[in-house]
Amino acid sequence: MASQNRMMKLIAFLQAQNCSNLPGSWRHPATMLDFLTPEYYQRIARTLEDGKIQMAFFDDRLALPDLYTGHHAPSVGAGVRAVKLDPATVLMTMGMATTRLGLGVTYSTTYYEPFHVARVFATMDLMLKGRVAWNVVTSLNSAEATNFGFREHMGHDARYDRADEFMEVVLGHWNTWEDDALILDKETSRFADPDKVHRLDHDGKYFRSRGPFSVPRSPQGQPVIVQARQSEAGLELAARTAEVLFTVSQNLETSKKLYADLKARTARCGRSPDSIKVMPGVLTVVGESRDEAKEKFERLQALIHPELGVAMLSDIVGLDLSKYPLDGPVPEVPLSNTQQGRQKVVMDMARAENMTIRQLYIRVATARGHRVVFGTASDIADALEEWYRAGACDGFNIMPQTLPAELNAFVEQVIPELQRRGLFRTRYEGATLRENLGLPRPANRFSATSAAAE
Amino acid sequence: MASQNRMMKLIAFLQAQNCSNLPGSWRHPATMLDFLTPEYYQRIARTLEDGKIQMAFFDDRLALPDLYTGHHAPSVGAGVRAVKLDPATVLMTMGMATTRLGLGVTYSTTYYEPFHVARVFATMDLMLKGRVAWNVVTSLNSAEATNFGFREHMGHDARYDRADEFMEVVLGHWNTWEDDALILDKETSRFADPDKVHRLDHDGKYFRSRGPFSVPRSPQGQPVIVQARQSEAGLELAARTAEVLFTVSQNLETSKKLYADLKARTARCGRSPDSIKVMPGVLTVVGESRDEAKEKFERLQALIHPELGVAMLSDIVGLDLSKYPLDGPVPEVPLSNTQQGRQKVVMDMARAENMTIRQLYIRVATARGHRVVFGTASDIADALEEWYRAGACDGFNIMPQTLPAELNAFVEQVIPELQRRGLFRTRYEGATLRENLGLPRPANRFSATSAAAE
Repeated sequence: MASQNRMMKLIAFLQAQNCSNLPGSWRHPATMLDFLTPEYYQRIARTLEDGKIQMAFFDDRLALPDLYTGHHAPSVGAGVRAVKLDPATVLMTMGMATTRLGLGVTYSTTYYEPFHVARVFATMDLMLKGRVAWNVVTSLNSAEATNFGFREHMGHDARYDRADEFMEVVLGHWNTWEDDALILDKETSRFADPDKVHRLDHDGKYFRSRGPFSVPRSPQGQPVIVQARQSEAGLELAARTAEVLFTVSQNLETSKKLYADLKARTARCGRSPDSIKVMPGVLTVVGESRDEAKEKFERLQALIHPELGVAMLSDIVGLDLSKYPLDGPVPEVPLSNTQQGRQKVVMDMARAENMTIRQLYIRVATARGHRVVFGTASDIADALEEWYRAGACDGFNIMPQTLPAELNAFVEQVIPELQRRGLFRTRYEGATLRENLGLPRPANRFSATSAAAE
Repeated sequence: MASQNRMMKLIAFLQAQNCSNLPGSWRHPATMLDFLTPEYYQRIARTLEDGKIQMAFFDDRLALPDLYTGHHAPSVGAGVRAVKLDPATVLMTMGMATTRLGLGVTYSTTYYEPFHVARVFATMDLMLKGRVAWNVVTSLNSAEATNFGFREHMGHDARYDRADEFMEVVLGHWNTWEDDALILDKETSRFADPDKVHRLDHDGKYFRSRGPFSVPRSPQGQPVIVQARQSEAGLELAARTAEVLFTVSQNLETSKKLYADLKARTARCGRSPDSIKVMPGVLTVVGESRDEAKEKFERLQALIHPELGVAMLSDIVGLDLSKYPLDGPVPEVPLSNTQQGRQKVVMDMARAENMTIRQLYIRVATARGHRVVFGTASDIADALEEWYRAGACDGFNIMPQTLPAELNAFVEQVIPELQRRGLFRTRYEGATLRENLGLPRPANRFSATSAAAE
């Protein structure tokens, strides 16, 4: 049987919080409200594994939203991401309930220390037997900064500069134990070969970290590196280091261009274009008929109270919109120090369609700028197939809006349709996330060096 | 049936690494070597829960030992704590395999950020349904400092000063969501009561952290606070904030004095003496007969290669002893910037018994200065009963030397003997760790204030 690794990849975009990407989703009748218990997350994990989906993935944010009105009352009152659990801890509950599902989680390079992040992810990757991915983010906004001792968020370029060095330290530590360093000979009392355990001795602009690191290599060598940026600096960092890139795009032609650009950049960095998987986000709503799907989608949008919608839009465009008229035009916003890539996608959309604030928040609060597809299972499979076959992506980052209901619908209806078309696999081929994403196991830097010297 | 909470408490002192407290333990025939897999830790967790033990507890260290010779080769080669996994991640694997066992883990106040630590522990406490404890440490040595960007370890007093404020921030955040803040009314779109979610707005000497915190209260309110210090500054911090205190003592009279002192200090801080549990460490070796136990203990000691023993002793007394003769006297050491309490216990022991370096490392590398008891199950029960009834402690921190073998022996032989004597419980009385330790559920600070104002 031919490898199924040439097929489309699917990742589920999740939040360790009270709502899905759609902030009003907690109000939907099909949403379960036990989001403070492991059962909520384990239920999702089992469904994803039933669907043979490659990875469950958590975003993160280190503060509650309060740019709108400058106070947290609207967000907390209406449940707009009013809870944000540590995603690594939640991920462990899902990992313990599954055996093949990959598990990715976001950790910030702006507010954590690289030695700590290296150790947490290396440990998770051992405990989950090579199924872990790290989404490298530089964090978003000043609310997060104020929780971590700063008066405001670090500048955009400095953040990327720091992120670059942060990753250098983390990847460095992950490479300091060679794959065959452990000996474990009780008789001769030889635990490990000291010549195969190296100090990193990193001394850079932002970080110093000496080592030796305290965690040996995992079954997949090291966690998979995920990124989700499309600013110029973000794309360069991705081309050098990302193995999965989440993108935001509404448009097939734009996506094809981004895909080709990124694969070319990756090749220019001396990496195989196959060693990076490009995954745009897509919000799917599946129904028995197109009309039913449309109605379902409209019910979802109706969950967005105007205050909640404007609050969320303010957060994304980086400007408090509470003082502007709801049915007036979207004002000019200064270049954001948060997610510049996403700000641009959203503002371009507003300009192109000449949208009011209300029109824009409805579009954005539902899918945060990502593509929306609703219809029958067959319609959705068509939409995914079109982009995949056109060379716009390696797969998709799906965004279930009600949990577990919409995720169940996707797994029960859309996945079988994709499988019938030979677009999606019917089994996990490997034990590790790298195997199931078709990513190479990175050679240990030191082993590679000594092998080359032989 | 009367509450069993007046009985002795037991905690198991574990390491997320390749060896137990005894660094040569990985070489013992009864030690399993799958310490890089969840099965190793879950096996231990199930045994502890079978024994109705209150809590599994992990120490931590953020570097491999290399003070001896200034290089990691001896430690890595001989397996002296040559691996150190992130203990919170490992703890989650154990939590998912149990339902009543408490789970405690060490996280440093010197190298982490309080918002992060608050969020990780609050999330664990939700995912484990109120079974979590945080052991607050200030970290040990300069090897750790160099992994986190510093050239050397922060001074002892500054570390405690910082730890004090660190805890203020963590405990502060844990109290910002009142117990009944969540409403979860889908109809009216009221997620939470904004008046019951508070900003911390901490602005201190070492930390600024604004909030609001992103994790609601857990079933036990907040994680249990553990400490393990007996320096003057450490005892004062413990009296103000600790709920469990791990102590090191070889001597009944010293222990009684420490116990009385600590309970008095706690009362002076306005807390009930019952709200802190004092737990000295004890290394037990159980045999069918005393001779068998003694022989077992000697076999354990024989696992300590001299180089490994001196390496470990160097680490504890804070001086590289590689240049001193093995059978000569223990030299004077400068006041340590690591664990001053433990340094004093060990050096006092060396002086009192006029020990050589070899004699001291054998004693210390086996039990790290803790009390050692070997004999039949009945002998061990006698030894524990004596201290408990004499008012020297509220229970013990047991230190199994081979895993799972010595832990199994304790659970299968010593626990039933303690239960027969009415000294140890036969069932978990509560669902949360606080309930099972007989600790009060802390009133939320804001709720307490508004209740008082009524």
